[in-house]
Amino acid sequence: MRKAVVLLSGGLDSATVLALAAEQGYETYSVSFDYGQRHRAELEASRRLADAMGVREHKVLKLGLTEIGGSALTDEDIPVPDFGEHPKETLKDVPRDNLSSIPVTYVPARNTVFLSLALGWAEVLGARDIFIGANVVDYSNYPDCRPEYLKAFEDMANLATRAGVEGDHFRIRAPLLNLTKAEIISEGVRLGVDYGMTISCYQADDQGAACGVCDSCSFRRKGFLEAAVPDPTPYRTAV
Amino acid sequence: MRKAVVLLSGGLDSATVLALAAEQGYETYSVSFDYGQRHRAELEASRRLADAMGVREHKVLKLGLTEIGGSALTDEDIPVPDFGEHPKETLKDVPRDNLSSIPVTYVPARNTVFLSLALGWAEVLGARDIFIGANVVDYSNYPDCRPEYLKAFEDMANLATRAGVEGDHFRIRAPLLNLTKAEIISEGVRLGVDYGMTISCYQADDQGAACGVCDSCSFRRKGFLEAAVPDPTPYRTAV
Repeated sequence: MRKAVVLLSGGLDSATVLALAAEQGYETYSVSFDYGQRHRAELEASRRLADAMGVREHKVLKLGLTEIGGSALTDEDIPVPDFGEHPKETLKDVPRDNLSSIPVTYVPARNTVFLSLALGWAEVLGARDIFIGANVVDYSNYPDCRPEYLKAFEDMANLATRAGVEGDHFRIRAPLLNLTKAEIISEGVRLGVDYGMTISCYQADDQGAACGVCDSCSFRRKGFLEAAVPDPTPYRTAV
Repeated sequence: MRKAVVLLSGGLDSATVLALAAEQGYETYSVSFDYGQRHRAELEASRRLADAMGVREHKVLKLGLTEIGGSALTDEDIPVPDFGEHPKETLKDVPRDNLSSIPVTYVPARNTVFLSLALGWAEVLGARDIFIGANVVDYSNYPDCRPEYLKAFEDMANLATRAGVEGDHFRIRAPLLNLTKAEIISEGVRLGVDYGMTISCYQADDQGAACGVCDSCSFRRKGFLEAAVPDPTPYRTAV
């Protein structure tokens, strides 16, 4: 049985990716990162999702990203903005190569660090496929979610590793890359994903209740609305 | 003053790289990784070197590599081999593209993980140069020390980051890439590096005494011999 490593943040996208990998017949291994993020409830969510979705092994790896800082998600001195505080260019109707408004929730090199550790684990496991929930439609203008970035990471990975050098190539799989949030949700519903178990909010409280107003909440709420699927998210206040 | 991030393992190569970066006029920021390595004395060595060599800020970042395992350096069940136990092809007179004998001390994706975290910190600092002591001459056939790998990482980094996307490019600097160990030592002596403070051994004891027989010790001993520089390394037994 082919093995796949899945980056599992505990959010809506990565839960859907995990379900897609399982549907494609992979034995799944999921990994989350404890990097001092504000939204720590997502680590619990990822553990519960891994349990519920038949993952063979789930790892939570510690990472010193708060010591690096530089993002609203890892530095307590930088507040998480409400969606309305963003310049309009971050919305989806803007050309995809417009990265002039990368928001303060961008964590420097985060996906690169996450994918690198997933790569190391994949090599040890003998897995060659690494799944990530990167998405370029309803996203926040993060440079490390773009297809050209993912391709460059894959090329690098195949020069970095024993397996890659021996011609047994790694593949970075981003099956949600060109889907809207609504399309992702429809796909997840088809696959039986319980979105009530997922947490997307950048500032979820300890019980996992969402703020409803950050970027991530806004994209998610809009997705459920457009997919005409009831939103199971527990919000702290009525939104 | 231009800033540079330097990967500082506490070994001979990275100490020399740090001295070279300082000579080139960079304000230096060094980073070490606490990844559960056997040779933990190197973390102390890197702190002392950073102090002695005028580093502006030194960080030790924790990393869950032992949880991934797969290497003699991170998995207690895999012993570190003596130099003599290696197939002959790992020696320097073998073509550089012969990677068929990557040794058990190879840590899956290690340099990729290290460079990724250095990249994140560099972006936060506003540094654009990342120095690494990678070397292809007297090395151990690690795929992630080769020039084509380093170039691929640099390309990926410039797609991954806000700065790279905005045209303010990162450079991965590996000034030792084509030097022999003896040439590295001669360069370090010229720059005043105190090699007595460095630790290269894969299984140094808590006091920093070296085994004298692992790959890393063997390359180092040979280097001092060929450079005609007295070897200041404290060995556990006469070698």
